[in-house]
Amino acid sequence: MTDLAESLTVPALPRLDDAGRAALFTEARTANSFAPTPVTDAELTAIWDLAKWPPTAANTQPLRVLYVRTQQGRDRLVPLMAEGNQAKTASAPAVAVLAQDTRYHEHIPTVFPPKPELQQVFEDNEELHSQSLRFGAALQAGYFLLAVRAHGLAAGPMGGFDAAGIDAEFFPDGRWRSILVVNIGHPGENPWFDRLPRLDHPEVLSWA
Amino acid sequence: MTDLAESLTVPALPRLDDAGRAALFTEARTANSFAPTPVTDAELTAIWDLAKWPPTAANTQPLRVLYVRTQQGRDRLVPLMAEGNQAKTASAPAVAVLAQDTRYHEHIPTVFPPKPELQQVFEDNEELHSQSLRFGAALQAGYFLLAVRAHGLAAGPMGGFDAAGIDAEFFPDGRWRSILVVNIGHPGENPWFDRLPRLDHPEVLSWA
Repeated sequence: MTDLAESLTVPALPRLDDAGRAALFTEARTANSFAPTPVTDAELTAIWDLAKWPPTAANTQPLRVLYVRTQQGRDRLVPLMAEGNQAKTASAPAVAVLAQDTRYHEHIPTVFPPKPELQQVFEDNEELHSQSLRFGAALQAGYFLLAVRAHGLAAGPMGGFDAAGIDAEFFPDGRWRSILVVNIGHPGENPWFDRLPRLDHPEVLSWA
Repeated sequence: MTDLAESLTVPALPRLDDAGRAALFTEARTANSFAPTPVTDAELTAIWDLAKWPPTAANTQPLRVLYVRTQQGRDRLVPLMAEGNQAKTASAPAVAVLAQDTRYHEHIPTVFPPKPELQQVFEDNEELHSQSLRFGAALQAGYFLLAVRAHGLAAGPMGGFDAAGIDAEFFPDGRWRSILVVNIGHPGENPWFDRLPRLDHPEVLSWA
């Protein structure tokens, strides 16, 4: 006799195996030096083609990516990095400037067809607009860093840069605003600092 | 003859295989219904033990997690969800309330021993403090959602809830502030909506 209930059950979701956990979470480290091995535009595009999939509120996807990998682009970017980050960024074969698209809600009729009228709601509600922009872009930055690692590349995220300077230099129309700069490449010599401690469970986890 | 240069090369980093990419990025979906299959406290702890590893600025780790999985906890939480989210949250075997720790910088001497004096810098600079809190907690929320998926569980993140109400009910001392509620479980019947479109490359990617 067929067990109808069982045949209707949604199949179990796949789990990430230990190698995958090591690559993205448990063994992966922030690189502080890079080998000269190039990173191709195809690899940089493929990073986005993973990072774009995890969820954002109302599918708004407010993150944008400027990939800097020519010498000319690097010459414009490096002086706008904090002094302690300039050598790292100069040595990285590719650099991603992650940015918020301040007009992200204009895409809502395309990306969220069930409720195209949300575009106007975001347009009219400055607090909702800016809160969704900040939160969504940072959430996607998290996806992005793990997507870099998924491609066998080391990511070096940096908050130390002249954001207004980068925006003026690379986003002069004012629509995109830089939020994080990420060096991307294969690790070079002595690429890792000692691993820093993570908070203990009782500091982070609560139960109800 | 030994090739010394080659023997000094840092070994290639592992890549995420196609099964891992499917589990976390390309095939994973936001679940809108849940099977009654329980989620154990050990699984919920293990989710955090992946999510805690990817980087935050100066290792500040400002995200906190309240796991709600008892009937009593659920009875307190569900009325504080937006009406359209109440049935989903009531049916999820576990729910994570992700929160910012507004006093995260008090841990800096422990989590960033190279520069314990940063604690005072964050204490004295309200803009730096709140910007790092908002950005870091959202970044870690991105890591968290992928860590749920890594455990073969479906995540259902929701922004629609009464944040002030949740904070008053669960975080009455005012230190933690809720930012996202995430249903966690095995998918139930008809768990997926149609997949929504992602933005085209020219809308997102720029090159220099």
